[in-house]
Amino acid sequence: MIPALLLALQAAPAAAAAPLPSDPLPGDWRPIPDDELLVMTLAGGRTVTIRLAAAQAPEHVANIRRLALAHWWDATSVYRVQENWVVQWGGQPADAPTDPANKTLPDGVVKAPAAEYDLTGGFHPVQRLARSDAYSAASGITADGWAVAGDAAGSGWLAHCYGTVGVARDAAPDTGSGSELFMPLGGAARRLDRNYTIIGRVIDGAQYLSGLPRSGAAMGVYATTAERTSIISARLASDLPAATRPHWQYRSADNPRFAAMIAAREHPKAMVALGGVDVCDVPLSVRRAE
Amino acid sequence: MIPALLLALQAAPAAAAAPLPSDPLPGDWRPIPDDELLVMTLAGGRTVTIRLAAAQAPEHVANIRRLALAHWWDATSVYRVQENWVVQWGGQPADAPTDPANKTLPDGVVKAPAAEYDLTGGFHPVQRLARSDAYSAASGITADGWAVAGDAAGSGWLAHCYGTVGVARDAAPDTGSGSELFMPLGGAARRLDRNYTIIGRVIDGAQYLSGLPRSGAAMGVYATTAERTSIISARLASDLPAATRPHWQYRSADNPRFAAMIAAREHPKAMVALGGVDVCDVPLSVRRAE
Repeated sequence: MIPALLLALQAAPAAAAAPLPSDPLPGDWRPIPDDELLVMTLAGGRTVTIRLAAAQAPEHVANIRRLALAHWWDATSVYRVQENWVVQWGGQPADAPTDPANKTLPDGVVKAPAAEYDLTGGFHPVQRLARSDAYSAASGITADGWAVAGDAAGSGWLAHCYGTVGVARDAAPDTGSGSELFMPLGGAARRLDRNYTIIGRVIDGAQYLSGLPRSGAAMGVYATTAERTSIISARLASDLPAATRPHWQYRSADNPRFAAMIAAREHPKAMVALGGVDVCDVPLSVRRAE
Repeated sequence: MIPALLLALQAAPAAAAAPLPSDPLPGDWRPIPDDELLVMTLAGGRTVTIRLAAAQAPEHVANIRRLALAHWWDATSVYRVQENWVVQWGGQPADAPTDPANKTLPDGVVKAPAAEYDLTGGFHPVQRLARSDAYSAASGITADGWAVAGDAAGSGWLAHCYGTVGVARDAAPDTGSGSELFMPLGGAARRLDRNYTIIGRVIDGAQYLSGLPRSGAAMGVYATTAERTSIISARLASDLPAATRPHWQYRSADNPRFAAMIAAREHPKAMVALGGVDVCDVPLSVRRAE
């Protein structure tokens, strides 16, 4: 039966009728400030919503805000989609040949803020995972719902999980303004940890980036303008009219319910237990709010 | 400069002029037998080539061969693409409503071989990684180029890395024939390790599956037949005319050059070193051969 075959391969266990220890309580949902949301509209009205890591990468997020307020991404494009690596977007116009000089950055945008690869406060997840991965000594989730990893010395950084948004830069550090951004595709790009600044993560509409055709050209850059996906606009939610402004909430991790959710992932009952869950496989729930 | 921004985010380091310790020698390339290659042609002539895990999942691969020889997948479709989870294909016709009964399996195809989740021989990679992940005690690469993981007791299994192809089944084990297959999208589906049978991995053309639009319907099943991607045919390479048969080789892992390649990934010189590489991020090189 096709339905059963499909149901067996669910992305998440079916919801139980009775409340679970891992279910969030109403008070677990916290608002994401309107100026920490970047709402990107692609051709066809497809919306990609990015939660900005304002506390973790303040200088680059400040740049992102300046760029958004200046409508910098309007009429730019998604110009690179490289199989099992990244999708990248920014200053290339949707319908004109690649401009080596790129667009001129607006006044006030810092051309190259100092790299914000590591967290200034170090590694302080409120939920630490039982096991970590090949790229860190430990990993976990912060109270405000970000996936972080750390080393033995206590340094911490945002993990390059699927859906995170990073700052594209030249080979040298301190050479990215935030005007060009990328999202990992395929496997998590964890080897980029501590080497690129993460400015946020896609909380809605990632499928409009991940589902784009891959480019067969070098490094996944589309060879023709026709292949590019136009970006109609990118606005901070705070810069949208109040009547149509989207409001989002994240699920706080600083409570026993989130811990129970992690434990259920580390020791799932319905399957052969593997004993751990990767930090990039912990759901970071968000929801729309009114 | 856009070119530099893009070059900085390469999927792999630029090739050096002089030979590297990690470069393969000619003798490192081994043929993949023609009956271990499943060549799937999608609408538009897009080809997806799957290397079959004949040694690791022999019963299911035997079924795959029977299905391919019976042309079972002709005029079926890719009917499910679920964001950050899986793409799935098989018995649903390209242009007809979903058939709950599915297609009748050909004679000789075992309806439900015993699950082949673990490797009968246990965990024996020829290259063991310095660090493992949240889902295993250890991981590494086998001599014949497969990503494997193991537990403390010595059990081993194929890892559900991006690009692997698994057998879709009902909720109960031993309920998948291989007629319905899936490939993980987004983050690696490592929580599926030891719970689904892997019958191979896509060695060419994965982008034709990963670049498909995601379905907004429940569990990523396309709500309309128009959204499905037709499968024109799926043939074992050994069942293709000799004149046009593709020949592929894999890079053997049982040599110091492969070890040097892994070491370079675990301790990359050009970046902040993280000290490890995930088993799913070790390149498993293949090449066309004449």
